[in-house]
Amino acid sequence: MNPKDDKRTASCSSTVFVHNPYLDGLKDDILYHFGLGTGTHDLPAMFGDVKFVCVGGSPRRMKAFTEYIAAELGMEDPKSEYPNICAGTDRYAMYKVGPVLSVSHGMGMPSIAIMLHELIKLLHHAHCTDVTVIRVGTSGGIGLEPGTVVVTKQSMDATFQPKFEQVILGKTVVHDTDLDQSLAEELLQCGKELNQFETVIGNTMCTLDFYEGQARLDGAFCSYTEEDKKDYLKKASEAGICNIEIESSVFAAMCKLSGLRAAVVCVALLDRLKGDQLSSSHEVLSGYQKHPQILVAHYIKKQLKAKAVCS
Amino acid sequence: MNPKDDKRTASCSSTVFVHNPYLDGLKDDILYHFGLGTGTHDLPAMFGDVKFVCVGGSPRRMKAFTEYIAAELGMEDPKSEYPNICAGTDRYAMYKVGPVLSVSHGMGMPSIAIMLHELIKLLHHAHCTDVTVIRVGTSGGIGLEPGTVVVTKQSMDATFQPKFEQVILGKTVVHDTDLDQSLAEELLQCGKELNQFETVIGNTMCTLDFYEGQARLDGAFCSYTEEDKKDYLKKASEAGICNIEIESSVFAAMCKLSGLRAAVVCVALLDRLKGDQLSSSHEVLSGYQKHPQILVAHYIKKQLKAKAVCS
Repeated sequence: MNPKDDKRTASCSSTVFVHNPYLDGLKDDILYHFGLGTGTHDLPAMFGDVKFVCVGGSPRRMKAFTEYIAAELGMEDPKSEYPNICAGTDRYAMYKVGPVLSVSHGMGMPSIAIMLHELIKLLHHAHCTDVTVIRVGTSGGIGLEPGTVVVTKQSMDATFQPKFEQVILGKTVVHDTDLDQSLAEELLQCGKELNQFETVIGNTMCTLDFYEGQARLDGAFCSYTEEDKKDYLKKASEAGICNIEIESSVFAAMCKLSGLRAAVVCVALLDRLKGDQLSSSHEVLSGYQKHPQILVAHYIKKQLKAKAVCS
Repeated sequence: MNPKDDKRTASCSSTVFVHNPYLDGLKDDILYHFGLGTGTHDLPAMFGDVKFVCVGGSPRRMKAFTEYIAAELGMEDPKSEYPNICAGTDRYAMYKVGPVLSVSHGMGMPSIAIMLHELIKLLHHAHCTDVTVIRVGTSGGIGLEPGTVVVTKQSMDATFQPKFEQVILGKTVVHDTDLDQSLAEELLQCGKELNQFETVIGNTMCTLDFYEGQARLDGAFCSYTEEDKKDYLKKASEAGICNIEIESSVFAAMCKLSGLRAAVVCVALLDRLKGDQLSSSHEVLSGYQKHPQILVAHYIKKQLKAKAVCS
């Protein structure tokens, strides 16, 4: 079988696309890092109604988001029990409340890429339609007050280019990192409506490392000077970069390839022009981490209300 | 301050080196992703006696390793309680029994790199000496029986080169990925002594992705044919590559830079020449995952016995 023979094309813009002619030939498809599979789980029954997928690095944060969105949507479990759907593994955690799925993705591009491969297959096997995926994360800001929420316009690499480079069979393949601009604008609008914290739209730099890759001076190794760091962050700022994190570019690339409407909403935990260490108190940092959740929950509520009026 | 002015050099070969002149200027050093810090924790008292650090992707696996090594060393807690030292965060899990520290690192190079930056700083702040770090992990084998343990000779990238490319201030920096050859030979010898499972020494390919990056046919996307996959794995095998995983090259590079004696010991969960899906039963896979732990525990026991005889 040759992938070029794969005739499946976009018959409906709302479907989740896999681009792999070999998948149909699998008797069962084991989503190994979720501990789920087509042979062991009824994926359409479990996930067929999913319309929003929210992803973030930390399992605890995604559980907290599930509890929060359940309360916001009036879908609380009276016993407050939200079982981890991926309890059979500790690679990722997954929770579901009504049409909202929350999944953790760990740290870094390889970790989120494994999760997205399996998530895209899950949504495909479950015959989901009209799915929006939003990364609710944390980041370092450039010239922003800590607590500010950045809705990503475009995800850029460490050379300030809007691209994601992947190595397939030893050869480099370049993908673009476009996100849905209308979704970004709608999320910015939600921030304005809420008026609880600053929300901006801007470019996000996605790096392969948290320390040297982001010009931090507080890693185990540092081969550049404070001046070099300042120059680099200044150039990033001139390229329209508002914040730095480590997952957005592969997230943007993979969501685009699979036809998923996607956005990245990250809070800036600190201003990198002023320092590198996350020295705010646990309470302050926890408060900041709720900002993207509050924004995205507001957006989901609005969408569900609008849909209820239409139908 | 210019890093070139940093006069600290190797006065004793057994020290853990940080290479960052800015660290001394920090009032406190917050190891954010561990939930530890020099201002909040007495790191020399907590970690000063550490001689072996074992790292692996899954938090549960590293907890299981701690329970296993405690029993092997006769250091069991009668209540079987091994508290997670990083309980304040869910980014990594950390356990300690006597001189053995176990730390999880998540999946992929960025995730293990963040952990290693903070681990190297932790060992430095705790004034640890003569530390050996071993990754006990899982991998896909090439032409190996599932369950075989591979001790890595050299970690190679997706073009079969023994190097790790890092991007610092937007520029690519290349590191070599040498591991300690005498340690690798000692670990191979431990496998022979145990004689419980096949143990081999060989090169390990380290990729940026689990699916397309390893030529799998079962991801959400697949732009190559089964023939292309077979050709690629054949070429990898001809380059001496026995197995594929996603953390070894940055692990090798960072341990070498910091003067840590390091090894990578991974079990092959499947033979990639025969398939891509991890379809063995949970019990079988769990059994395989114990092989590197058994091997490394045997090595640590031998070392501690030899040391007791000498002193």
